[in-house]
Amino acid sequence: MSNHTYKKIELVGSSTKSIEAAVQNAVAQAATTEENLRWLEVVETRAHLENGKIAHWQVTVKIGATIAS
Amino acid sequence: MSNHTYKKIELVGSSTKSIEAAVQNAVAQAATTEENLRWLEVVETRAHLENGKIAHWQVTVKIGATIAS
Amino acid sequence: MSNHTYKKIELVGSSTKSIEAAVQNAVAQAATTEENLRWLEVVETRAHLENGKIAHWQVTVKIGATIAS
Amino acid sequence: MSNHTYKKIELVGSSTKSIEAAVQNAVAQAATTEENLRWLEVVETRAHLENGKIAHWQVTVKIGATIAS
Amino acid sequence: MSNHTYKKIELVGSSTKSIEAAVQNAVAQAATTEENLRWLEVVETRAHLENGKIAHWQVTVKIGATIAS
Amino acid sequence: MSNHTYKKIELVGSSTKSIEAAVQNAVAQAATTEENLRWLEVVETRAHLENGKIAHWQVTVKIGATIAS
Amino acid sequence: MSNHTYKKIELVGSSTKSIEAAVQNAVAQAATTEENLRWLEVVETRAHLENGKIAHWQVTVKIGATIAS
Amino acid sequence: MSNHTYKKIELVGSSTKSIEAAVQNAVAQAATTEENLRWLEVVETRAHLENGKIAHWQVTVKIGATIAS
Amino acid sequence: MSNHTYKKIELVGSSTKSIEAAVQNAVAQAATTEENLRWLEVVETRAHLENGKIAHWQVTVKIGATIAS
Amino acid sequence: MSNHTYKKIELVGSSTKSIEAAVQNAVAQAATTEENLRWLEVVETRAHLENGKIAHWQVTVKIGATIAS
Amino acid sequence: MSNHTYKKIELVGSSTKSIEAAVQNAVAQAATTEENLRWLEVVETRAHLENGKIAHWQVTVKIGATIAS
Amino acid sequence: MSNHTYKKIELVGSSTKSIEAAVQNAVAQAATTEENLRWLEVVETRAHLENGKIAHWQVTVKIGATIAS
Repeated sequence: MSNHTYKKIELVGSSTKSIEAAVQNAVAQAATTEENLRWLEVVETRAHLENGKIAHWQVTVKIGATIAS
Repeated sequence: MSNHTYKKIELVGSSTKSIEAAVQNAVAQAATTEENLRWLEVVETRAHLENGKIAHWQVTVKIGATIAS
Repeated sequence: MSNHTYKKIELVGSSTKSIEAAVQNAVAQAATTEENLRWLEVVETRAHLENGKIAHWQVTVKIGATIAS
Repeated sequence: MSNHTYKKIELVGSSTKSIEAAVQNAVAQAATTEENLRWLEVVETRAHLENGKIAHWQVTVKIGATIAS
Repeated sequence: MSNHTYKKIELVGSSTKSIEAAVQNAVAQAATTEENLRWLEVVETRAHLENGKIAHWQVTVKIGATIAS
Repeated sequence: MSNHTYKKIELVGSSTKSIEAAVQNAVAQAATTEENLRWLEVVETRAHLENGKIAHWQVTVKIGATIAS
Repeated sequence: MSNHTYKKIELVGSSTKSIEAAVQNAVAQAATTEENLRWLEVVETRAHLENGKIAHWQVTVKIGATIAS
Repeated sequence: MSNHTYKKIELVGSSTKSIEAAVQNAVAQAATTEENLRWLEVVETRAHLENGKIAHWQVTVKIGATIAS
Repeated sequence: MSNHTYKKIELVGSSTKSIEAAVQNAVAQAATTEENLRWLEVVETRAHLENGKIAHWQVTVKIGATIAS
Repeated sequence: MSNHTYKKIELVGSSTKSIEAAVQNAVAQAATTEENLRWLEVVETRAHLENGKIAHWQVTVKIGATIAS
Repeated sequence: MSNHTYKKIELVGSSTKSIEAAVQNAVAQAATTEENLRWLEVVETRAHLENGKIAHWQVTVKIGATIAS
Repeated sequence: MSNHTYKKIELVGSSTKSIEAAVQNAVAQAATTEENLRWLEVVETRAHLENGKIAHWQVTVKIGATIAS
């Protein structure tokens, strides 16, 4: 188990609702092409503003996945 | 459109409720004096503690606004 | 009052629910051994993933407490 | 002269042409409202892409200006 | 639109001519395999030197692309 | 009180005497136009040199002020 | 040669033996799918602990590879 | 001597007088509970403002101490 | 399991032999007072030099441990 | 070839024309005293402003050179 | 004047008295071998501790000097 | 002793064998021209890859040396 290698991919998820939901959207997208997602790190949190309000959150994450070997 | 210039202002919003609400309070305040708010970047997240609990969140953001020209 | 000294301790709180709840769990734990908690700074936000979903949030915080003198 | 105070403002200039032109556009905008601009620091360089090409550069700068006293 | 997810890829472009041309070469390469390129961030600027002169610029960029869904 | 919003402004103070005096000069300048200054963070410490000696200190600070509402 | 473009991928290699071996495992894994590996940069060094000892090293690297064109 | 292990603790000292005095207050506090203090690193310098003046300095330090073995 | 809280402590281990051995010495010291050590992050690598050679390595680590609850 | 040692020197080049020209001026200066210049890294980009315009660019670079042995 | 090139050297000055005095000692040392010192940037502030007190300050600075041409 | 001034030089050592050996090669080179080497800080760890393997390690260090006075 100590010889596992992981790859990290960087995604930006977005959501009108919350920071957590933006992250979950990024994870859901990653899960459509990658198996074995293991952890994520939040890299940057931004939001798009419209009419003086937060229109949607944009959260950059790095997601780690075990490389099947 | 490619020649727009934006200014960035730095605010700290606070809220007893959530990180998102603290950010929204900062945006609402910015909107009282600035038009054309476009985006924000979360710079720092802190909280004030009282009686061993989170009393309120304090979130520093940089807000970008188009300069009317 | 200007001569107070504070110590800062670093904890990682976790929660299945939200970033805020993970932080609150870290604060609650700190409150069991430390009095006079004053503020916290979010240092890093990560999540553990299982079955292509966020299993729990893991948020690292630094908590500042007044040293009783 | 050693007691001068400077303020720093943060702007994002853009240009279809070059990084330097994007910075110059930010400086030109600052010069319409501020006298005594003294120096700038490039903080971040980004570009907006369209049709697989760079549509315009977006360069964030901090501009220092002497405060008239 | 607020639910878009973006991926970020990291490339190093090079050019004998300028920093901008090195970036454009990286974008042109990305466009051969990725649709929907949206923005880029310059991460690092280096140059290879030969005979006491700049032989070519090497610029690292992160490029964001919409994930088609 | 938890709903206060603060703005942060960035100034460079200078002094021939000390780092502290350079900061105090920046604060004194800020106080001529802003009420309700609350805290500052030292961002960068530099000095101008003349004749092999420190001619004056130049200290960049971010100053936080409550926005009256 | 000055117009080469490189891609950078981020991997985490692990090993019970040493930091170098963890990096080599990441490189060996990358070599199974990528040709033309050129350089790597160590980004982060961590270790998993068990029974008060280092169970295995986990080293994050960015690996640069020439894009065949 | 090469096998010494040190621990690092993080404190915030404060003083109405100077940055140095704020640091010394943190060291004095550390000395009441720790023997064998060896070095410190200044991590952050802030100040609390009142009535448009510096009320007291708040300096965060990491202090290294030999662990008695 | 998702509600675990971890504390992080910062130590500097040293060794005449290698970076890994310096880290292991820090872990061994931590294990004398803390149970449930879980992971570590290398923060800084330095060495003390004598007679133009490396006398010993000094490696700063943050060690995470589950708080028994 | 794998046992080469390089030294890195830090210079600030300036130019009225462009960022690239400022870097080239730094390299040209380095070449008057150092042989075997190999690469450079751009560390910081600033500009001096006069009359509301960019008077000259000031670019800090680290230059790597093989040490003849 | 816009074509000046500067070199930056990194020194650590020390003093039992103050941070400013430690910096001045570094500048005085630099002045014995370099002409045309122009500015400095404080990079890091540390102190050596003895008997639970600050024995001397150790301040790392980068000093910029015009290269005579 | 508290008034010593140190200079810091930046070198990149390389080795086919290990990170430690690359650092030792840099130190050995520094010792041929500098007396009184006192400490080093590892700044960056890279490796050159050939044929899908690590050809040699390249480690950047800052080396501190007492200035003889």
